[in-house]
Amino acid sequence: MDYSKKVKKKLKEKNASPLDRIKIKKREKTYEGVLMPNTEMSEPDCITIKMDNGYNIGIENTKDLEIEKLEKRKKKKKTREIEQDESKPPISLLSTGGTISSKVEYETGGVEPALTAEEIVAQTPEITEHAYIRNYEQVSQIASEDMHSKVWEKLAEKVKQELNNGSRGVVITHGTDTMHYTSAALSFMLTKLTKPVVLTGAQRSIDRGSTDASMNLTCASIAAAQSNIGEVGIVMHATMNDDHCYYIRGTKARKMHTSRRDTFRPINDKPIAKIKPNGKINKLQEHREYQNKKTKAEKGFEKKIAIIKAYPEADPEIINHYEEKNYKGYVLEGTGLGHMPTQTEKTWIPKIKEITKKGKPVIGTSQCIYGRVNPNVYKNLRKLYHEAGAIPGQDMTTETAYVKLGWLLATEKDQEKIKEKIKKNLRGEITKRSHPKTFLY
Amino acid sequence: MDYSKKVKKKLKEKNASPLDRIKIKKREKTYEGVLMPNTEMSEPDCITIKMDNGYNIGIENTKDLEIEKLEKRKKKKKTREIEQDESKPPISLLSTGGTISSKVEYETGGVEPALTAEEIVAQTPEITEHAYIRNYEQVSQIASEDMHSKVWEKLAEKVKQELNNGSRGVVITHGTDTMHYTSAALSFMLTKLTKPVVLTGAQRSIDRGSTDASMNLTCASIAAAQSNIGEVGIVMHATMNDDHCYYIRGTKARKMHTSRRDTFRPINDKPIAKIKPNGKINKLQEHREYQNKKTKAEKGFEKKIAIIKAYPEADPEIINHYEEKNYKGYVLEGTGLGHMPTQTEKTWIPKIKEITKKGKPVIGTSQCIYGRVNPNVYKNLRKLYHEAGAIPGQDMTTETAYVKLGWLLATEKDQEKIKEKIKKNLRGEITKRSHPKTFLY
Repeated sequence: MDYSKKVKKKLKEKNASPLDRIKIKKREKTYEGVLMPNTEMSEPDCITIKMDNGYNIGIENTKDLEIEKLEKRKKKKKTREIEQDESKPPISLLSTGGTISSKVEYETGGVEPALTAEEIVAQTPEITEHAYIRNYEQVSQIASEDMHSKVWEKLAEKVKQELNNGSRGVVITHGTDTMHYTSAALSFMLTKLTKPVVLTGAQRSIDRGSTDASMNLTCASIAAAQSNIGEVGIVMHATMNDDHCYYIRGTKARKMHTSRRDTFRPINDKPIAKIKPNGKINKLQEHREYQNKKTKAEKGFEKKIAIIKAYPEADPEIINHYEEKNYKGYVLEGTGLGHMPTQTEKTWIPKIKEITKKGKPVIGTSQCIYGRVNPNVYKNLRKLYHEAGAIPGQDMTTETAYVKLGWLLATEKDQEKIKEKIKKNLRGEITKRSHPKTFLY
Repeated sequence: MDYSKKVKKKLKEKNASPLDRIKIKKREKTYEGVLMPNTEMSEPDCITIKMDNGYNIGIENTKDLEIEKLEKRKKKKKTREIEQDESKPPISLLSTGGTISSKVEYETGGVEPALTAEEIVAQTPEITEHAYIRNYEQVSQIASEDMHSKVWEKLAEKVKQELNNGSRGVVITHGTDTMHYTSAALSFMLTKLTKPVVLTGAQRSIDRGSTDASMNLTCASIAAAQSNIGEVGIVMHATMNDDHCYYIRGTKARKMHTSRRDTFRPINDKPIAKIKPNGKINKLQEHREYQNKKTKAEKGFEKKIAIIKAYPEADPEIINHYEEKNYKGYVLEGTGLGHMPTQTEKTWIPKIKEITKKGKPVIGTSQCIYGRVNPNVYKNLRKLYHEAGAIPGQDMTTETAYVKLGWLLATEKDQEKIKEKIKKNLRGEITKRSHPKTFLY
């Protein structure tokens, strides 16, 4: 869609075209930024500008709205050619979509997921100082809120191939929203993994001045090419500054802030390492060591599972809905130590007993996020975990418990073994004892 | 139920009776603690001891299990009489249940919610140095995982009466699991509030050496009796040490750890004040000031509302279930900036559009917990918030958005006004801009 006639007239009067820098005055407010072309998503009578913080805002055209042209549009920079040094450790770069593969597409307006893996590297040539990118591949081009299990399986297969065919590590670029679900999925699907598989992304697109993409990519490539870590992890900004990144275990990471660059935090765990963009790696805790061995991929995900959150007045009838659809398992995101409403009109205990009697696994986690589900302290906990047969998720996050459950239901047929494996630490997702410093790390 | 014959025999051999201190050896492990009587919840062949950290554990009797008696049971201390100083500022103490009103009931075994408000004070006579407890009342006796809206309404009514009848503040003891839901409910239901209404609780019961109940109660009473805060808040341990508590705004608090005493944290907000058990109060940010004015209670809660969490492969069919039950509103706990799966096979957009077309409010929040929902940055966000008509919850927590929605639907009839009020900051639940220091505070 194009701008309305009224808007076009105002812009023409000031000789302002898309991508020029303009100032808009409306009532007592002033907005400054780059005029964007109208897109199908915008109202024709709404002027969109990209502000210096990188965000677009739409300002409705009113009579009193005034436009001032500040500067003519800047010319587009040409993508640099990448020169690589084949003596560096070989890694693979897989891209899936998300902000890190997005750029402001000036011809169409708006942030678009458009960059290929090669284009991402072209924006961050520093990578080639630490690693030789043996292979690039675009596995998908989707925003991470739309990520799904088929891409997890495709990634697992692709990572296995890359690691078994000459790469010592893999970097995967991914949207941040569900990066921790994907890192958990790869942690479980890649069996016998002894090499670094590093997910990274960005909270601001790579063509913004404030982008975190370049440092994240550089640190991720260092981790893949140089670290002696043999696990799946997320490498993103550790602080608000551009000083270093953390390598957070794939089953213990969580996106904890909607917009900050240091959004990924370890839950009930310390980061595995600190990675500096100059190539320095500081180990912060024990991890599986790098070994040059073959990796296997055990793929599969049962989609008929649900996360159910507890809250006051939550009605257990919701379970009827899922049971009618023949769901195979559940994660209950309880309150505190792992409670569901118990001694109330709307008690959940009988419904949960019904499910577990059918042999279906029900895992209890906590919406506190930090800490550990304890099946013993209170009578209500005993009812849920001893009497009704839910399985305490210990210190697993809800997200990791969900991914583990879906993966187990698809790859393991024996009901008893599934339950055993839920309780057992398979990929660092369950720790025996949480270090006090891991709270709000 | 009683212990099994085999267990009884072993105990008799060592002359060990319930409440004696014993040591149990089994395989290579040793357990030391107070022998508990068997309860209906325990297996008859499982010996329960209360360990020094306050937790009960059950140890299954096996042939190799050995018992050693260490010490005869200690006599029960008599409850002290409370002496009060009527010249101190008058407050009311309302109890609802939870760990803070629990004690180890030696006759029955297990932690039981049994203490009345008077008994709680008797355990913490320090309160009377700061406040005159004008009235005690037990409003309910339930664990907070079972808390529901009828108790919220009862509390709102009771608090109003106490404040309008001579108390300058109210302390409410409450279980910790859903304390932040209740603090949000009271924040909304108490209109024109200009006095401190303070919720407090404990992570360890009051008769344990490691209890946090006494300091929390003392600080809560200081806040109610002496602070110039005119808002609902949660007063609990600020750190792992017994140094001070925070007064956290009732609409901005969240339980963030299953077991730590410093579990309550402010989300996207600083604490209002630091309260020391010696009576010192340090203001940390702006708040409504104390005034001796009448409080009103606007009660009501629509139970037919749901929290729905987004995750990869989440199926929007769940909305059919709720719509069949004639639900009145929804909170979508999205990923990142407030996304639901959009450009996937299982897109949520059409279903959400269906609901909002009926005039029902749908609020989007973020499972990141920290940060703010932004309806503009990405195309998928525009689809959800502009096209499908969901209302961005800004920086409200999911829990507060849920309580606000239920309260608005019950107390406000005009659909448009409900939507306006969701967007508007009514009780400090929405801030304009988050201070960078409020992340993981």
